[in-house]
Amino acid sequence: MSLFMAHITTSVEYAIHGLLWLVDNDKPLSSRDIADLQVISPSFLAKIFPKLQKAGIVVASDGVRGGYRLARSADTISFLDIVDAIEGDKPLFDCQEVRSHCAAFGGPAPGWAVEGTCAVHAVMQQAEKAMRQALAAHTLADVATRFGRKAPKQFFADVQGWIEQRIDTRTARVGRRSNEPPP
Amino acid sequence: MSLFMAHITTSVEYAIHGLLWLVDNDKPLSSRDIADLQVISPSFLAKIFPKLQKAGIVVASDGVRGGYRLARSADTISFLDIVDAIEGDKPLFDCQEVRSHCAAFGGPAPGWAVEGTCAVHAVMQQAEKAMRQALAAHTLADVATRFGRKAPKQFFADVQGWIEQRIDTRTARVGRRSNEPPP
Repeated sequence: MSLFMAHITTSVEYAIHGLLWLVDNDKPLSSRDIADLQVISPSFLAKIFPKLQKAGIVVASDGVRGGYRLARSADTISFLDIVDAIEGDKPLFDCQEVRSHCAAFGGPAPGWAVEGTCAVHAVMQQAEKAMRQALAAHTLADVATRFGRKAPKQFFADVQGWIEQRIDTRTARVGRRSNEPPP
Repeated sequence: MSLFMAHITTSVEYAIHGLLWLVDNDKPLSSRDIADLQVISPSFLAKIFPKLQKAGIVVASDGVRGGYRLARSADTISFLDIVDAIEGDKPLFDCQEVRSHCAAFGGPAPGWAVEGTCAVHAVMQQAEKAMRQALAAHTLADVATRFGRKAPKQFFADVQGWIEQRIDTRTARVGRRSNEPPP
């Protein structure tokens, strides 16, 4: 009977952390590259990136040097865009129209009881709007900047080194195997 | 792998609709009375009211005329109080500390990477705070007033009639059976 609303899930969390590796990065990364860099489940992330692509947040390119890149500037990609891309704009609250049944009606609900939005639902909609506004007010660029202030320069060099080595390994394999296009 | 956050659930919805019958009502109602009046599952509602009692939103009295009443004025019972009573103050977002693992660390996470709150988590906390503020800004009394403006006077008389008949039936049964204390 209890209806659980999925809201801000681990999928969203992994999407955001995954996307952060694409900010200020000119080298396309496959979802496998990102999963290995972040040390998270590759199969889980492989299901997330197609949703981000469908929502116009990332673009994918094929080929041995292909992978995902941000589709637009990181300061135009809000947390709300990512939540909606992953969760499909599910409401916070799934109104069951409880107001439509009452023993004191003595029959079907009268018109006055069900016209307009249920007052309980209206409060939930306001709460959801407040939450969505807060999510819309923060972008990938904001968080990347905040992270960039904390991380030492050496870390970014280490990440670039890891990415270059990964691409080199992938390129070297091509001689031996057929072209496996990322993502 | 996907972690679903229960947030504003049907339990909350039923709790609010159930509580609305106790606003401006001096006759205690059992959770069974409320379920029958609203035509919702009695066993489901029977699990909800003890949580509202534990949170100090309702008080219960025993005996054939016993049942639940609001523990305090309806204008001091916010939607947030009810959500927290039912959901136990679960966070909107359950941070998995994804930032603590990265292949480029070359080992355990360095101090700078995990100090303070994760920037992703911080955005989610702001979104949650905005949602909670909106829920805190609305009380049972607000919604009861809004409903009272829509409903005809006859409806409230019908509800009082239904409740009185229910209490009469319960009282009449006492002669035959042992005292079954609501709730």
